[in-house]
Amino acid sequence: MSQTPIRRLDARAPEFMSTLDALLAFASEADERIDAAVSEILRAVRSTGDVAVVEYTRRFDGLDVASMAQLELPQAELHSALDSLPLVQREALMVAAERVRAYHERQKLESWEFAEADGTRLGQKVTALDRVGLYVPGGRASYPSSVLMNAIPAKVAGVGELIMVVPTPGGEKNALVLAAAAITGVDRVFTIGGAQAVGALAYGTQTIPQVDKIVGPGNAYVAEAKRRVFGTVGIDMVAGPSEVLIISDGSGHAEWVAMDMFAQAEHDELAQSILLCTDAGFIDAVHAAIDRLLPTMPRRETIAKSLANRGALIHVDSLEQACTIANRIAPEHLELALEDAEAWIDHIRHAGAIFVGHWAVEALGDYCAGPNHVLPTMRSARFSSPLGTYDFQKRTSIINISQAGAQHLGKVASILAHGEGLQAHARSAEMRLKD
Amino acid sequence: MSQTPIRRLDARAPEFMSTLDALLAFASEADERIDAAVSEILRAVRSTGDVAVVEYTRRFDGLDVASMAQLELPQAELHSALDSLPLVQREALMVAAERVRAYHERQKLESWEFAEADGTRLGQKVTALDRVGLYVPGGRASYPSSVLMNAIPAKVAGVGELIMVVPTPGGEKNALVLAAAAITGVDRVFTIGGAQAVGALAYGTQTIPQVDKIVGPGNAYVAEAKRRVFGTVGIDMVAGPSEVLIISDGSGHAEWVAMDMFAQAEHDELAQSILLCTDAGFIDAVHAAIDRLLPTMPRRETIAKSLANRGALIHVDSLEQACTIANRIAPEHLELALEDAEAWIDHIRHAGAIFVGHWAVEALGDYCAGPNHVLPTMRSARFSSPLGTYDFQKRTSIINISQAGAQHLGKVASILAHGEGLQAHARSAEMRLKD
Repeated sequence: MSQTPIRRLDARAPEFMSTLDALLAFASEADERIDAAVSEILRAVRSTGDVAVVEYTRRFDGLDVASMAQLELPQAELHSALDSLPLVQREALMVAAERVRAYHERQKLESWEFAEADGTRLGQKVTALDRVGLYVPGGRASYPSSVLMNAIPAKVAGVGELIMVVPTPGGEKNALVLAAAAITGVDRVFTIGGAQAVGALAYGTQTIPQVDKIVGPGNAYVAEAKRRVFGTVGIDMVAGPSEVLIISDGSGHAEWVAMDMFAQAEHDELAQSILLCTDAGFIDAVHAAIDRLLPTMPRRETIAKSLANRGALIHVDSLEQACTIANRIAPEHLELALEDAEAWIDHIRHAGAIFVGHWAVEALGDYCAGPNHVLPTMRSARFSSPLGTYDFQKRTSIINISQAGAQHLGKVASILAHGEGLQAHARSAEMRLKD
Repeated sequence: MSQTPIRRLDARAPEFMSTLDALLAFASEADERIDAAVSEILRAVRSTGDVAVVEYTRRFDGLDVASMAQLELPQAELHSALDSLPLVQREALMVAAERVRAYHERQKLESWEFAEADGTRLGQKVTALDRVGLYVPGGRASYPSSVLMNAIPAKVAGVGELIMVVPTPGGEKNALVLAAAAITGVDRVFTIGGAQAVGALAYGTQTIPQVDKIVGPGNAYVAEAKRRVFGTVGIDMVAGPSEVLIISDGSGHAEWVAMDMFAQAEHDELAQSILLCTDAGFIDAVHAAIDRLLPTMPRRETIAKSLANRGALIHVDSLEQACTIANRIAPEHLELALEDAEAWIDHIRHAGAIFVGHWAVEALGDYCAGPNHVLPTMRSARFSSPLGTYDFQKRTSIINISQAGAQHLGKVASILAHGEGLQAHARSAEMRLKD
């Protein structure tokens, strides 16, 4: 009998939907201690700039420097990090970067314009952001793939200057992260982190230029700081725990499904792996595979806790029912582990990314398939999209009205403005009328 | 001599940039009283649904009804509001709606996919949001044009159900707003408002279905409620005061410029109208026109306060300098009131909308030119875009990897996953390797 604790549910049970909702629920608690600390740090960085950033970096990261300039890494250091990598790692990073770049080239928005018969021309002008800040966590969660996924779309969009911040507690640097910065052409790198790094990017300091948008993952302090500076600058999103939903018809290999669930669960204890399967026997096989494979995993403790707390193996009646449930979950990652997977794509309305068929495992998308691995979490795929080139571009409406156009449109605008009680609006249109 | 109080600045003055920054600064103060009230209202709506909404609507809007159902307007009432309008107003609304629709059709995102040599297919699937809530303010700021600008892009995107909320304090309804709802095909209308309406849309009640995104302007309570429900649902933006920047070379009519500044200033005392002009004599003429025209305006008190508090007439050296300043301001609305306006479009990197030439007055864009009048305020045009069809669509990455593709990509993913210490990621890729 299977031993590993993980929920076994039946979608036909009367209380299933409320059980599911409870399983999905995740409240990112507001923590007053974090709020207060972040508020103070941002205030200090805003008022004293470099002085505050240097002081917090001394306090939190143990780096004792005389000035902010000493916290900037020269480009040569990034390139020597790249050169020092084993060839196989360097090549893997290069292949991944090139595939991500090629995919994101296709997302680039273009300006357009059209003319009307009376000479009026309307359009939409697309421009890149001037300057973007990229937050990269230090320590255990410092991932070179995250540098690729955030920096490449910014560069493809044509962002003028890309500034990376990465804390190096105790001075310890991650060679793979620096190499990824070199490959993607990050313009400047500062070894700072936490709320002080977010504040420095949002407000600018004597040394660090103010950016227009901040992207990249971080801990609770970083997330709260991003929330607070939003408006002064753009931000990407405040992500929740990572999730995968696998829909299976019992075809394929139970071990593959088990390992795909592990890959999600190994991120942290809050990560969520759910299987929806029409075949009760296959669910048993997956559970057995979990039992068999779990002891072999270096991160088995995290995996076990994640599966026990937030995982589920769910028996469904049909693939139609599985898709209905999937649309309710709106998962970050969805694997269609099906014999005829393509036929089911159109049944899915909400998901960050759909991995189609048994060969399309999430790990390939995490690193090198090409599409972005920064995806909407916590059911936000109902209304938001993967990070993309378009997040580093913006649109300006172009309204180029001819004299003839102003005659026609001016009368309409005048009537509607008077209807709204905005007489100056009406008069400014009427002044352009020739008759 | 000109009498109307408005700043006169010279861009050549040494302290000009800091004066400009102070003029642009606008702190939307956090108000603890509003925060606490909104927090309580949202909690009540979340826990008791219709009961809370009905009670708050009784308390705040003076509507005494027995059940939520009585707060829904039947479609017939929307259509009879449309039928009851004077013909000239009905036709103006129709023309505006059709032009807005035609422009927004061009913004529609389409799905795409491409194949690689080994059979791997990658793409991006675009879908509309299922259900959207549209907040429309009651009372003085209840604008039919706002219904058109928010509802039409949602409908063009293909949103399944569009639910409008509009408070009707004391039962007073705005016929133009209901007519605009009829024209744009709004699916359901509830006469509720404030934080309770935002909560009802975000969480759903027994009567009001939960939406996926909430758009539309509102007062400080509505803005705070939207900020708080963000994450549970998407929101458009929390807008600041409206602004116009006019760049003039002294060509055109001083009275047109003065009235265009009034049109912005009449919105409210915090609205901002700024002129940048290379011709000192023309600035004098604009100031004189302001003196002459102001007494004729019904909303002259608001206009005068807005111009005195936040307006400015600024003498610049050159149009190049004007564009540099414009890019720093990143205005919501930019009028290029220039002889050769088109030549200067490419000098502008940051603006919500650019009105090109003397005939392209902002009021036409506010009502009927076609582009959206919901634009980024408070310098956020540096990183964000006008409301558009794309705000009601979302993207899903499609990752369809062939068996051959999994061999090639799996090796790359495995190397990178091991580099990040994520062994289950690596194993899930390696399990698909055939050799």
